[in-house]
Amino acid sequence: MKVAIGIDVGGTAIKGGLVSSKGAVLEKDTIPTQAERGVKHVIERTVSLIQALEKTESADSVNAMALGVGVPGFIRRRQGLVVSSPNLEGWVDVPVVAMLEKATNRQVILDNDANNAALGEYVCGAGQGVRSMVMLTLGTGVGSGLILDGKLWRGANECGGELGHTIVQPDGRRCGCGQSGCLEAYASAESTARRTEELIRQGEASVLKGVLDRGEAITAKMVVDAARTEDALACRIWEDTCRYLALACINVQHTLNPECIVFAGGMSTAGDFLREPVARTVRKLHAERFGMPPEVRIAELGSDAGFIGAALSALRGE
Amino acid sequence: MKVAIGIDVGGTAIKGGLVSSKGAVLEKDTIPTQAERGVKHVIERTVSLIQALEKTESADSVNAMALGVGVPGFIRRRQGLVVSSPNLEGWVDVPVVAMLEKATNRQVILDNDANNAALGEYVCGAGQGVRSMVMLTLGTGVGSGLILDGKLWRGANECGGELGHTIVQPDGRRCGCGQSGCLEAYASAESTARRTEELIRQGEASVLKGVLDRGEAITAKMVVDAARTEDALACRIWEDTCRYLALACINVQHTLNPECIVFAGGMSTAGDFLREPVARTVRKLHAERFGMPPEVRIAELGSDAGFIGAALSALRGE
Repeated sequence: MKVAIGIDVGGTAIKGGLVSSKGAVLEKDTIPTQAERGVKHVIERTVSLIQALEKTESADSVNAMALGVGVPGFIRRRQGLVVSSPNLEGWVDVPVVAMLEKATNRQVILDNDANNAALGEYVCGAGQGVRSMVMLTLGTGVGSGLILDGKLWRGANECGGELGHTIVQPDGRRCGCGQSGCLEAYASAESTARRTEELIRQGEASVLKGVLDRGEAITAKMVVDAARTEDALACRIWEDTCRYLALACINVQHTLNPECIVFAGGMSTAGDFLREPVARTVRKLHAERFGMPPEVRIAELGSDAGFIGAALSALRGE
Repeated sequence: MKVAIGIDVGGTAIKGGLVSSKGAVLEKDTIPTQAERGVKHVIERTVSLIQALEKTESADSVNAMALGVGVPGFIRRRQGLVVSSPNLEGWVDVPVVAMLEKATNRQVILDNDANNAALGEYVCGAGQGVRSMVMLTLGTGVGSGLILDGKLWRGANECGGELGHTIVQPDGRRCGCGQSGCLEAYASAESTARRTEELIRQGEASVLKGVLDRGEAITAKMVVDAARTEDALACRIWEDTCRYLALACINVQHTLNPECIVFAGGMSTAGDFLREPVARTVRKLHAERFGMPPEVRIAELGSDAGFIGAALSALRGE
C-alpha cells in the first residue's frame, strides 16, 4: 500500500494525516496554527506534526513516504513558494518547500488548500466516479479547484481555478481582492453574514438584530438558521447568495461543462438548504437548449479534504 | 506529408481546402451554401466541393485523406450529429457524418465551427507557441473554443466552450438562447449593431441615423467606423462592447488562466481598435495581486480558420 503524509496549514489549525493512494485516512491529528507567532513558528509546528505522524503505528510499515502540503493563498508551486496568504499574516514569498524539505528530509509537494481539497473530494469524496468536476469552497472567501479529465487544472501561471474572483455583478460589491462584483463578494460565508449585518444596521427587521445589539458578529450559520425559520431578511439574503452561486454554476457549465459542481467549506454544511435553491435557480436561469445543467453536490470529506488531497497530490507526484 | 480535407459549412458559404498537418493550405475553394434549399441540398453541395478538392493537383499525390467537417450549432460529435443550428434552418438531428461517409467513402470527423476555428488558430495562427488559449469568435453570435494543454476541451456532454452564453449581466438583455444577460447579448457584432439601432430609435443623435432613415440596417462595422470618427453614441456603444469583452476575459483568466485570449470573427477585423480598449479595461478591472492578465490577440487566419481547423481535427483524429 502506498501511503503519504498530507498536511493542511490553515489560519487557525494545522491538520495532517497518513493517507493511502485511495484516500483512506490511516492516522490524523490537528494542532492550533498559532499564526500570530510568525512564519518560522508555524513551520516548526508543522514539522512537529509531521514527526508525530511519522511515529504512529501506521507509519511503521512504510519506508519512504511522500509529503504533500497545502497552504491557503497564492502559491508558486513549481518554485515551492507561498507568495502571499490572506489567512496567514506575514507570509510573503515563503519558500515552504525548501524549509520543510530541510527539516524533514522528504520530498515536499506544495499546492494551495482549495486545489488539494478538490483533489481529495475527487478521489474519495463527492466527485468519485466522474472525470471532470469543479469545486467551490464557501468559507471566509470562495476558493475553487478544477479537475479536468482527472487532473487538477492550474492554468498557465497557476492563476486559474480562482472562480471566487470571477465577476458576477459588474460594478458590484467591492471584493477583498480589489476587484468589484466578484462571486466571493456575494457568495462566501463571510459576505453572507456581512450583507445581513449591513441591512440590519440600515434599519431592516430581523431576528438577528439581537446579535448585533449584544455587540456580537453575525455568522453565515446564523443567517441559514434564521432563513430556516423564515426570517424575511435572512431569507432574502440567502436567496441572493444562492442566486449568485447559481450564476457561477451556469458560467462554469457554459465554460467547462463539468460532470458535477461540488460545494464545500463551512457554508456547505447547510446541505440541501444550500443545494436545492441553487439547483432550482440554475434550472430557472439556464436555457433548455443547452441540455441538462451540471449536477450540484455537497462535499463529503469536511475539513479533512485538504490534508487528504495534499497526500494524494504527493502520491501522484503532480 | 499528411494532408486532410477540411470543410466549413456556414450559413452563407461552404468553404473547403486541402490542408497539411502544419496547417498549410494547398488548395481552397468556396461555394454558396444555399441553406434555404434544405439539408439534403447543402449536403450534396458539400460533397461536390469535396469532390472538386479531390480532383485538384495537390490531391493527386495523397492516397487516403481524412475529412474534417465543421457546422455551426449544437453538435453531438461522438454520434456524428448536428442537433440544431441557428444559422442553418431546418437542421435538426442531422446525421452529417453518416451522410458524408456514405457519399465520400471517407472517415468523417465532425465538430462545431468555433472549435475548428480555435484549433486552426492554435496550430498555425494567433495561438502558435502557446499551450492554452481561449478563442472568442465575434460574429452574429459569440462562439468560443478552448485549447487546454494543447487539446480542445469540449466538456462532459460537449456543451463546454460556450462562453458566449456565460452571464455577464444578471437580469440583463435577453439573449437568443433564452437566457438573460449573456455575453453574446452585449458583445456580438449583431448585438453591437442592434444596441446602436435601439438607442437611435429612442431619439439619440448619431451619424448612423441616416442608415435607419434609408430603411437599411446598421452593421457592427458601421458602428466601429462611426466610433473611429468619434460619433458620441457609437463610441459609447463600442466602449460597452469592449467592457463586456473585458469582463469575459477577466472571468476566463480567473477560471482557466490561459496563455492568451484570441478574438476572431467579423468584428475582430477592427484589430487594435478592439484589442486596445479591451486590454485597457482588463488592466483596469483586474486586481494586481492576480499577476498579469492574459494577453489579448487578434486572430490571423480570417475565415479560413474553420476549414483549416476541420482538416487538422481530422488529421489529429480527435
